[in-house]
Amino acid sequence: MITDVRQHYRFDGEKFARSNLVETGQLFADVYCFEAGQSQPPHTHDGATKIYYVIEGTGLFTLGPDERHVSAGGFVCAGPGQVHGVSNPGPGRLVTLTVMAPNPNK
Amino acid sequence: MITDVRQHYRFDGEKFARSNLVETGQLFADVYCFEAGQSQPPHTHDGATKIYYVIEGTGLFTLGPDERHVSAGGFVCAGPGQVHGVSNPGPGRLVTLTVMAPNPNK
Repeated sequence: MITDVRQHYRFDGEKFARSNLVETGQLFADVYCFEAGQSQPPHTHDGATKIYYVIEGTGLFTLGPDERHVSAGGFVCAGPGQVHGVSNPGPGRLVTLTVMAPNPNK
Repeated sequence: MITDVRQHYRFDGEKFARSNLVETGQLFADVYCFEAGQSQPPHTHDGATKIYYVIEGTGLFTLGPDERHVSAGGFVCAGPGQVHGVSNPGPGRLVTLTVMAPNPNK
């Protein structure tokens, strides 16, 4: 499939929104859209890798024991069992391309 | 790991250049950098999914029977066994974030 990621931006005033681009037997790719103040709390995945590429804005990422601001062009990779999360301190919106393998939905 | 993708741009006058961001047991993520006129010829991967996110420039992507120009913000997913390739018609450079799962190198 071929698409433009910007066509999949979707924001929700209640909580950060995930917009799926693709799911295969090997991975999923989502667009995560965060209004200012929204977050994905720190969590882990056994046996899976998740990556975030920051398309727009700046996120405050948790990765293991670290917290770091990551802006557009930044890349974060959480390996199996590694604690990870992200919040949008604002004032702008935050958009990430988020990929996880293997795909827990398949 | 956390990094800025732009720090990994590497161009090679001879052929398109791959710059690895991360490898885990589940996936690899590379930055592919194409000078004008360079290409990754169409090919397939059995049992693996590859995605391309276009960071800069415009690529002419082959995906199965289709050919399509895809510019910055565009996303291409080739599923298992699906023919895929990309060329940079120029005149500018082309940069993609490229992810493949599972990781054939692990």
